[in-house]
Order: sequence, then C-alpha cells, then structure tokens
Amino acid sequence: MILTVTLNTALDITYHVPALTPHACHRVGEVRERPGGKGLNVARVLAALGHETVVTGFAGGATGAVLRDLLAPLAPHDALLPIAGTTRRTLAVVDDASGDTTQLNEPGPTVSPEEWAAFLSSYGSLLRDADAVALCGSLPPGIHVGAYAELVRRARAADVPVLLDTSGEPLRRGIAARPDLVKPNADELAQLTGSREPLRATRDARRRGAHTVVASLGADGVLAATPDGVWQASPPASVKGNPTGAGDSAVAGLLSGLVEQLPWPDRLSRAVALSAATVLAPAAGEFDAEAYEDLLPRIAVTERAAAA
Amino acid sequence: MILTVTLNTALDITYHVPALTPHACHRVGEVRERPGGKGLNVARVLAALGHETVVTGFAGGATGAVLRDLLAPLAPHDALLPIAGTTRRTLAVVDDASGDTTQLNEPGPTVSPEEWAAFLSSYGSLLRDADAVALCGSLPPGIHVGAYAELVRRARAADVPVLLDTSGEPLRRGIAARPDLVKPNADELAQLTGSREPLRATRDARRRGAHTVVASLGADGVLAATPDGVWQASPPASVKGNPTGAGDSAVAGLLSGLVEQLPWPDRLSRAVALSAATVLAPAAGEFDAEAYEDLLPRIAVTERAAAA
Repeated sequence: MILTVTLNTALDITYHVPALTPHACHRVGEVRERPGGKGLNVARVLAALGHETVVTGFAGGATGAVLRDLLAPLAPHDALLPIAGTTRRTLAVVDDASGDTTQLNEPGPTVSPEEWAAFLSSYGSLLRDADAVALCGSLPPGIHVGAYAELVRRARAADVPVLLDTSGEPLRRGIAARPDLVKPNADELAQLTGSREPLRATRDARRRGAHTVVASLGADGVLAATPDGVWQASPPASVKGNPTGAGDSAVAGLLSGLVEQLPWPDRLSRAVALSAATVLAPAAGEFDAEAYEDLLPRIAVTERAAAA
Repeated sequence: MILTVTLNTALDITYHVPALTPHACHRVGEVRERPGGKGLNVARVLAALGHETVVTGFAGGATGAVLRDLLAPLAPHDALLPIAGTTRRTLAVVDDASGDTTQLNEPGPTVSPEEWAAFLSSYGSLLRDADAVALCGSLPPGIHVGAYAELVRRARAADVPVLLDTSGEPLRRGIAARPDLVKPNADELAQLTGSREPLRATRDARRRGAHTVVASLGADGVLAATPDGVWQASPPASVKGNPTGAGDSAVAGLLSGLVEQLPWPDRLSRAVALSAATVLAPAAGEFDAEAYEDLLPRIAVTERAAAA
C-alpha cells in the first residue's frame, strides 16, 4: 500500500455566493464539505488510480469527526489519530459570476508532545506495510520544525521510498534528511534556493539532499532533476479551471509511477496529465478521468541536460 | 420564566484577518464560535438581567451539537429539539485594521413536517410555564410562511404575552395574528408598510394587528406606538462599535420590562440603553454591563403624540 501523511488535515468547506463584497452581508447559496489537507487529496487520486492507500495524521474535535465521517465511504483507509484539539476548517468562497475564489484558512490545532509520540509509534507500524510514503502539507502548531526530517529518516531506515511536499523551513530541514523526492512549486523552490530560474533552482534543491526534485511550474508543466537526467514535461496547451489540488494530483502521479517502477518520462507524463485533468474538473481537488486519459499520450517530455 | 423561540439557530463563527481581499488567500488569526440566532441572543441578555429563560427551536448535525455544547454552561435553559438536518453556520470576517465585518450566512436546514409537529407539541408545554414568549428571526426551509402567525395564536390562546421579531412575509402574516409586540427595524418597517416615515409606518404597523409596535431606528433609538401613547426614546449620543445583536438586546429590554410590568417609558429606556451598551461591547452580541448602568438614567424619552 501507499501511505500518505497529513499532519494538518482540514475540513474543506466551499461557499457559493453571487459576488463577494467586503463589509456586506451575503446569503450563501450552496455549502459543500470534503475531507481536506494535501495528503488526503493525494490519497484520493492514488485510490482512483487503483492503488491501495492509507491516510494518517491527526483529526480532532467536531470538525475532525465530520472529516472522518466524510472520509469513511471513500477508498483511502483511515489511520488518522485522534487529538484533543479541533481540526481546522479551510473556507473557499466562490464568486459564481467570475468563478474566482477567496480562501480563508483557520490555524491548525496544537498537537501535544504525547500526541506526536503516539503518531511516531503508529507511523513506524504503518511503514512496515508501505511501498512508498508521501509527507504532505504544513505542520500544525506544537510540532517541531524538524518533524518532516525525522519522518524522512524513519522512512529511509525502513527502506520505504519517501516523497516530501511541504514549504518553508520544514522543507529546508526535511530535504537535508535526503528524501527520495521533493515536489516544490515555483514559489517554494524560490524560497528554498533564492533563485527563480527553474533549472538552476531545481539543481540547487537536489544538491541540498533530495535524490530527485520535481518542480511544478503551473502551465509550463514540471521540471525534474533526477539521478538519471533532467526532463521537462508540458501539457499540450494551457488549461483553464480551478488549480486547487493540481499539485496534489501531480504528487499522486509521481508516487504511483514510483511504486509501478515506471521510467521517469512516464512518471512525469502521468503527473502532468493528472495535474491538468484536476484543473479541468468541475469539483475542486477531483480529477476528470476522461480528460486524464485524453491528455496522457499528449504530454511532451524533453530531456533538458544531464543531471548536475 | 421567559421563553425565546429560534427556529433557525446558528453557530456564529468569527474570523479575524488583517484585511479581507477578494480572490486572495488569507490565514485566519483567531477563530471564535458562539451559539447564535436572535432568540438565543435575547435569552442571554435576559439571563444577564436576572430572568429565568428557556430557549427552544431546532438544533441538528455536527454544528447543532457544537452549538448545544457551547450553550450548556450558559444561563439559558436548553429546550432545543433535535432535527435530522444540520444547523447552519454564520461567518463574520472581521478586518482587524478597519474593524469592518463581512458576513456570510449559510442557508438553514430543512425542517420536516414531523419535526414541526414535534415542535408545536413541545411549544404548547413550554407555554404553560412562560410569563412571556419571544419569536425571533428567520424561518428555516420547510416551515410554512404562516408559522409565526400560528405560534402567536397559540401564545394568545394560552394567555402568554408574545413578542414577534422577524421580517418579510413571516412578519406580515404574524402581525395579523395580533401579537402583543413587534420590534421591526427601519428596513423591516418600510418593507411591511411601504413607508420610510417612522411615525406613519409605526402607526400603520399597529393598524395591521400588533398591540404595540416598537421600531428600532439605530442611532435615533426607538419609536414606540403603544395603546397608551407614542414615545420616542433616544441615547444621549451616537455610540460607535459593532451593532451586531443590538436589536436582540432591545428585544430583551422590552420583554423584561413587560414581565416586570414597568411603565412604557421605563421599558423603552431599558431597551435603548441595552442596545447602545451592546454596540459598545468589545464582543459581538454581548452587552457592556457598566455602560448599561451608566446609560440607563441618561436615555431621553419624549411623548410624541396620542396613539392613532
């Protein structure tokens, strides 16, 4: 099975309003709720691709209970641990006229040292059955900034390939623990390396410890610096839609390609096609299966240069 | 005891952000939750004034459970009925820089005919011990537009004084059932009568069936058309702050004055002082007890003319 870790899960709420006007009163037309957090999104795409997946991390309070209720009928297996704090909500307010979204993200619950210790113990057990593990998203308050580095080291000690998808200092520390794969976007890469030149920044990120760096560059697809070479993979044309979850779908593509031992160009094609098919899907964070099948053979993969 | 009815209760959530920018992503600094809906606000103020109060209406789903948990340690007694649907959330997003608030209100849950029948039965029992009853706020989906008229008639049949605080068609129908008191604001009054001239509109509203009409006019205080005369009651100066809940505090003032059998000028002074003390309080919907004591003797009450 593939394990995904979401330490800061969220109940994703979407409101539809005719138009969001600051300092006015709005009647919300439609309310949707879904289990959220990057690792949960990755797991749903992996399950849709036919992989057995397990999600772990934390869930607590009334919103945590709603999240688990909504997760129960879905394919990923729930191995979330209870916490005393309350799982955060993220609110997306969609203007129905323009389709534009305003995002409001609550802070996560504080995780106690005892809860973190319980997680580490559970994580060790789950790794024994894992073919790969993805560590996804932000750290909630209370968890030390080197937490992902610790989880990377434990995965490597258990001989389980590990992908890290986070940002800021947790990424900087995590990458130094030598994960198999990191998937920063352009902003995260620039923050890590100080460079906005994708090839230079991707190679720099590799030198910091990641075996492979796959930079997601929005409409330009992905740039991958791997031990076997450097590739760029691009969608046939710019796709219009809601980019929410596109990066998570790319992670699912990379992770599924890894456990299926596909060659790098095939893994990258899958990541880019899934990402574009997620932008095209009407529901945020889902992917359009038909668009994916259509896009997959049309992704252009070019070798850029030998790996640094 | 005093009974307040809130058919469309809400979990009131407040987010603080530095500034709300449409189509941007915001980290919420602070999240607060409180039990909401007009009748619950009225009951909290009545309890603070020393009256035994009971709240009824509906609560359901995960948000209903949170609402009841938050209500449990407060003074009003919880006689809410469970429903299959989920209690709505109302979200106030406060710009910390300007103090301005953007409001997003979810639609209420649909109430089934069986749930409404169960409410009517419970309401009848509660009326037996009630010295007065307030019917507050909007009707959730599924409840017929004449519902408040029905609740007014049942209160009158039980010889319990009844105050109605709602708007639109439910107010229009409810007022025809001859409640003891209605408390429209300027907009609700204009919608009901077609007139924006307060004295004319207030008298018109009385002719529609209410024994007394107390119009809340914001900074101008209240204008009351009663069987004993017409009075205007005004605060000493315009007060600045958050007007959320000011109308509910006025209702609590009127209702407490009614059961204490105060003369009209004293009831109106109390309503205006509580309302202004609510605008001045730092937390939305609470009232500043010290400001209330200070304001109460300084409310100017003038007789306007004989009742029409």
